[in-house]
Amino acid sequence: MDLQLHQRVGELYARHSEVISDDRLEEWPGLFVEDCVYKLISRVNVDRELPLATILCESRGALLDRVTAIRNTMVYEPRTVIHTVSNARLVEKAADGTLVARSMFCVWQTMIDGQSQVQLVGRSFDRIAVEPDALRFRERIAVFDTELVPGSVVYPV
Amino acid sequence: MDLQLHQRVGELYARHSEVISDDRLEEWPGLFVEDCVYKLISRVNVDRELPLATILCESRGALLDRVTAIRNTMVYEPRTVIHTVSNARLVEKAADGTLVARSMFCVWQTMIDGQSQVQLVGRSFDRIAVEPDALRFRERIAVFDTELVPGSVVYPV
Amino acid sequence: MDLQLHQRVGELYARHSEVISDDRLEEWPGLFVEDCVYKLISRVNVDRELPLATILCESRGALLDRVTAIRNTMVYEPRTVIHTVSNARLVEKAADGTLVARSMFCVWQTMIDGQSQVQLVGRSFDRIAVEPDALRFRERIAVFDTELVPGSVVYPV
Repeated sequence: MDLQLHQRVGELYARHSEVISDDRLEEWPGLFVEDCVYKLISRVNVDRELPLATILCESRGALLDRVTAIRNTMVYEPRTVIHTVSNARLVEKAADGTLVARSMFCVWQTMIDGQSQVQLVGRSFDRIAVEPDALRFRERIAVFDTELVPGSVVYPV
Repeated sequence: MDLQLHQRVGELYARHSEVISDDRLEEWPGLFVEDCVYKLISRVNVDRELPLATILCESRGALLDRVTAIRNTMVYEPRTVIHTVSNARLVEKAADGTLVARSMFCVWQTMIDGQSQVQLVGRSFDRIAVEPDALRFRERIAVFDTELVPGSVVYPV
Repeated sequence: MDLQLHQRVGELYARHSEVISDDRLEEWPGLFVEDCVYKLISRVNVDRELPLATILCESRGALLDRVTAIRNTMVYEPRTVIHTVSNARLVEKAADGTLVARSMFCVWQTMIDGQSQVQLVGRSFDRIAVEPDALRFRERIAVFDTELVPGSVVYPV
């Protein structure tokens, strides 16, 4: 696969981390296609083929709902978040032109007056659409290892 | 922007992490241009537009001073440091040819007989000069989230 | 050095992290050449030029032995592991065509019902062979900073 494509996949992952870490959540749904799937699920559930996900959104509209909830209705302890991604890798180009990619993530949270602590670590398994103006996630499955999550999951992963 | 430039920006960030993690601090100022700005500042101060920085150096000479202080005059608990960078991204090329880039960092410290603990996590916002022999930082603003920093900040971030 | 080679080195590091994080250890020895060296050693021993390593394997067969031991004979607390790599960098091409590369690693472990905790952080210093079908490690020296390692080291780093 060509180098330009590898570069663009890496950039999409970096931008995804940035909108979360910069608290620019309003831009987060724009990184997904309209007809998308976003799932945050624990590794134990994936391994046992149990369907229950911590977050499941089945359209870009549902992502917008999530952002609206975070901004307006959810009650949670204030924090800052640093979402880092590593090991981003374009695995293959599917027959329909979608890119199959994966990465590892590590989410750090800092409460007021607190140390930074790791909240979640895990792997993501993704499908990326090549649209005329940009690459966007068609499917993002974020699988976290952490069994005892410190605090509540508020921001997207 | 061309792929070669993306590659070289990634390399500059990697080398910056290496001189810190390898304890080759004497080489750190050489990664900056003569007329540079280096700032380590907390996220709360940035968000409130408060100017106080934890470290502020306004020339390469000031970086050399910092290294000399670490080696000769500062008193601190001995430790080893692993400085990691992720999400390095060349954002754009400014009109004057300077590269605008950003990254996320995570600094690990290990005290004698101790576990490795995260000291600081955050984002850096940088301007990079393309000099004939190498890329060098013209400005590096490292913004850390961590509000309660374990131990003291000794090494550059 | 050409961009394709930088890309392939980054991919080798990513695949190495994946086989460990996905618990596909049986594929791990295949990332090394037959006549390889794998060493996991503490930073204090490296700095003092002491030879004692936590793990030392001097052929691909020894790596297979390690995997067999993990699967069949070792007794340890069950856990999941996320092995992340950052700062992967192709340093130079040696006269014999071997690639000299380095990286930073961070190993996360999660015990049953537990939070994710960092087990080891450090740097790796590697030599990579360019074989007709793939890049493979000829030598991998993983140097960890962590002096008090939580739990026991079971999986490769």
